[in-house]
Amino acid sequence: MFTERIWKRVEPIWSSYLEHPFVKGLGDGSLDEEKFKHWLKQDYVYLIEYAKLMAIGSSKARDLKTMGMFSELLHGTLFMEMDLHRKFALEFGISEETLEATDAAAVNTAYTSYMLNHAQRGGPEHVVAALLACAWSYNYIGKSLAEQSVEGNRYAQWIEMYSGDDFTELTNSAIELMDQLTAGKPERELAELEEIIVKTSYYEYMFWEMCETLEEWPVAKG
Amino acid sequence: MFTERIWKRVEPIWSSYLEHPFVKGLGDGSLDEEKFKHWLKQDYVYLIEYAKLMAIGSSKARDLKTMGMFSELLHGTLFMEMDLHRKFALEFGISEETLEATDAAAVNTAYTSYMLNHAQRGGPEHVVAALLACAWSYNYIGKSLAEQSVEGNRYAQWIEMYSGDDFTELTNSAIELMDQLTAGKPERELAELEEIIVKTSYYEYMFWEMCETLEEWPVAKG
Amino acid sequence: MFTERIWKRVEPIWSSYLEHPFVKGLGDGSLDEEKFKHWLKQDYVYLIEYAKLMAIGSSKARDLKTMGMFSELLHGTLFMEMDLHRKFALEFGISEETLEATDAAAVNTAYTSYMLNHAQRGGPEHVVAALLACAWSYNYIGKSLAEQSVEGNRYAQWIEMYSGDDFTELTNSAIELMDQLTAGKPERELAELEEIIVKTSYYEYMFWEMCETLEEWPVAKG
Amino acid sequence: MFTERIWKRVEPIWSSYLEHPFVKGLGDGSLDEEKFKHWLKQDYVYLIEYAKLMAIGSSKARDLKTMGMFSELLHGTLFMEMDLHRKFALEFGISEETLEATDAAAVNTAYTSYMLNHAQRGGPEHVVAALLACAWSYNYIGKSLAEQSVEGNRYAQWIEMYSGDDFTELTNSAIELMDQLTAGKPERELAELEEIIVKTSYYEYMFWEMCETLEEWPVAKG
Repeated sequence: MFTERIWKRVEPIWSSYLEHPFVKGLGDGSLDEEKFKHWLKQDYVYLIEYAKLMAIGSSKARDLKTMGMFSELLHGTLFMEMDLHRKFALEFGISEETLEATDAAAVNTAYTSYMLNHAQRGGPEHVVAALLACAWSYNYIGKSLAEQSVEGNRYAQWIEMYSGDDFTELTNSAIELMDQLTAGKPERELAELEEIIVKTSYYEYMFWEMCETLEEWPVAKG
Repeated sequence: MFTERIWKRVEPIWSSYLEHPFVKGLGDGSLDEEKFKHWLKQDYVYLIEYAKLMAIGSSKARDLKTMGMFSELLHGTLFMEMDLHRKFALEFGISEETLEATDAAAVNTAYTSYMLNHAQRGGPEHVVAALLACAWSYNYIGKSLAEQSVEGNRYAQWIEMYSGDDFTELTNSAIELMDQLTAGKPERELAELEEIIVKTSYYEYMFWEMCETLEEWPVAKG
Repeated sequence: MFTERIWKRVEPIWSSYLEHPFVKGLGDGSLDEEKFKHWLKQDYVYLIEYAKLMAIGSSKARDLKTMGMFSELLHGTLFMEMDLHRKFALEFGISEETLEATDAAAVNTAYTSYMLNHAQRGGPEHVVAALLACAWSYNYIGKSLAEQSVEGNRYAQWIEMYSGDDFTELTNSAIELMDQLTAGKPERELAELEEIIVKTSYYEYMFWEMCETLEEWPVAKG
Repeated sequence: MFTERIWKRVEPIWSSYLEHPFVKGLGDGSLDEEKFKHWLKQDYVYLIEYAKLMAIGSSKARDLKTMGMFSELLHGTLFMEMDLHRKFALEFGISEETLEATDAAAVNTAYTSYMLNHAQRGGPEHVVAALLACAWSYNYIGKSLAEQSVEGNRYAQWIEMYSGDDFTELTNSAIELMDQLTAGKPERELAELEEIIVKTSYYEYMFWEMCETLEEWPVAKG
C-alpha cells in the first residue's frame, strides 16, 4: 500500500509538529490567544483554497463515485467546516467580515499555491496527494492531543473536532482513495506523488511556525 | 446587459429547436419511445461532463459566494438531477447500470469536449458561457411546451421539470452570474464569450438531431 | 510496448482511411481541387489548436528533455509546418488572410476540443495520446500513398511531406515518448489512454469525410 | 496604460531591491562567490518553471501572433537563456548535472507555484501578469547597476545580460502585451492582475534574500 510507505516517510516530520510550541500550546491550553486568532484567520482563507482542490478533484475524477465523493467534501468544507470556523471565530471576537478580509500570509500563499499548481497540472492522484498531508496530519495531531487531554483546556473543541469520528472518517477516505489511485503505478510516478506529500508536510510545519510567530509577509510592502 | 445581446443572437437558433421533430414529439406526446430512451441515456452521460463544468467553476470562482453557488449546482446535479434521471429511466425500463455504461455519441462527446476545453482554458466567465445555452434553452423549450400542454402527454413530467420553478430559478441565477462577470468587459472579450454561447447553441440543435436519428458514431468502429 | 498494442487496435480503423475517396484521390491525383482547398483551410486552423497541445505538453512535461522536445515541436509547427501550409495554399490561390479567417467546421472543432480537453485534464501521457493518431496516421497514409505513386500527381508534394524522413522522425519520437510514459502503468490507465487514441482515430476518419463533403456546420446558423 | 499604474505601484518595492546586499554586491563585485553560486543553481531550476509559464501562455493565447511570441520566449528560455546559465555555471565550477539536480529552495518553490497556479487558473493576461515582475525588475536592476559600473567587476557579464538590448526588448514586449491584454478591462479585473504583480514583486525580494542567506528549507527534513 502506497500510504504505508508514505507513513514511514512522513512520520518523523509529523512527530516534530507535536514538539512545536503552537501545537503543544493547543494541547495543554497554554497557547496565547493572539496566536490562535492568527491561526483562525489564516486557516479560514486557507480553507477557501483547499476547497478549490476538492473542486478540481471532482472535475478530474475518473468515475461518478469519486466525483460525488469530492463534491461532498467540497460542499462539506464550504457549508460545514467553514461554518464551524465562523462560529469558533465569533467566540474569539472575530467577525465573518474580518475572516474573509484576511490577507493570506506568505507561507499560507506558498502552501496553497503549491497544492493548486500540482492539482491543476496533474490527475486525480495529484489532487489527493496534495490534500492528504493537511487532513491526515491534523487527524494525527488531534488524536495525539486528545490522549493527553487537560481539564478546562480552552482549545478542547479544536482537539475534539480534528480527533473526532467525522474527521477521522474523512481522513480515512482520503487515505483509501490515495491507495486506490496509486495501485500498480510505476515507481517514477509514486516518487513524484511522494515528493508532493513530503513538501506539503514541510509546509504544514511552516504553517504552525507562521502562526506561532504571527508572521505575514517578510517584506517591506512598498 | 450582456445576456440581452445574447438573447437577440440566439433566439433565431433556439426557436428552430421548437420546430425540430424530437422537441415537437415531446410537446404533443407523439415522440417514439426509443428516441426518448436514447435521449435519457445520452443525457445521463452528458450530465456527468456537465457537472465537471460546475466543479471547474467552483475552482475558478473569484469569491466565496460564487464558489458556493457552483458547489450547490454540482451537488444538485450529481445527487438530485441525475437521481431524477435514474428514476425516469427506470420507468422506461433502463437500469442504472445501462445508464452508466452508455457510450457518449459523437455529437455528445463533441459538445461536452467543447465546453470543457473552454472552461479549463478560461476564467469563470468562460465556464458560465459554456454552460448557459444548455440550461437556458431547456428552460425556454420547457416553458414553450408547457403553454401548449396536451392531456395525457407521457412526457408531461419532462416538461414540468424544465419549465418548473426550480429549474427556472437555476437558469436565472446562471443568467445573472453571466451579467455580473461580463459587466464592463471590453468588446473583444464579449465577442469571445458570445462565440461560445452560439457554438453551444449549435450543439444543442445537433444533440436533438442525434436523439431523433438515434445516431452514435458515424464511423466503422474498426 | 503500449504502442504495439495500440497498433493492433487502430490498424483496422486506419486502413479504412486508405479506402476513403478523399485519400484515394490524393493518392492518384484525382481529388477535386475544391475538396483539397477545404482540407488546406480546415487543416490550417486545426494546426493552431494542435500546436496548443504541444504547448500544454511542454508545460506538463516531467523533465527538461521532454519540455525541450515539445517546445521544438511547437516551434516547428508554428514556424515551419504552418509556413509550408501557407506556401501550399498560395499555389492554390488561397491567401494567408483567408487561411486565418477560416471558421473551423463542426468535426474540426469536435476533434480539437476533444484533444485539448484531455490534454488539459491529464498528464503528459494524455497529451501524447491525444496527438498521436494524427501524426502517426498521416505518416501511415503518406507512406502507403508513396508506394503507389502516380506520375504527375498534383498532390505529390503532400505525399512527400507526410511520408518523408522529417515527418517520419517526428512520428517516431511521439511513439517512443508514448512508450516511455506508459511503461509499467496499470491496465486501468492504459485503457484510458487507448480510448483517447481510438476516439481520435474516429475523428481522423470524420475529418476526411468532412473534407470530401465540404461540410461545415450541419445547422441553420440563426 | 495599465503598466503605468503598475510602475507607480511597484517602484517602491523594486527600489528596495537596489538596497539589498546581494544586489549591491552584484553591482560593485563584492558579492560572495558562494552566494552567487546559490543564485545560479536556484535560478536555473526557477527558469524551468518560468519556461512552463510561457508554454501555458502559448496554449492560452487568443491569436496566432501571441502564440508565436510565447513559443519564441519558451524556445529562447530553454535553448538560449538556460544555455547561458550552464556556461556561466561552468565558469564557477558548477556542472550541468549539479544545476539540474538542484532542489528548489522553499522561497523558489513558493514563487514558481504562485505563478503557475495563477497562469493555469486564468487567461493569457494572468500568464503575463505572473511573469512580468521577474523580467521587468531584472531589466530595472540590470540598467541601474550598469549605470554605476565598476571596473573589473566579476559579475559584469550578469549586468550586461540583464541590461542589454535583447533582454530590454523582451521586457518591452511583455510590457506591451500586458497593456494590450488589459485595454478596456473593468477595475475588478485590473485589481486582480495588479495583486499578482505585487505579490510576485514580494517574491522577487524574498528570492534575493534567500540567495543572500543561502536558505533552502526552514524545516527539519525528517
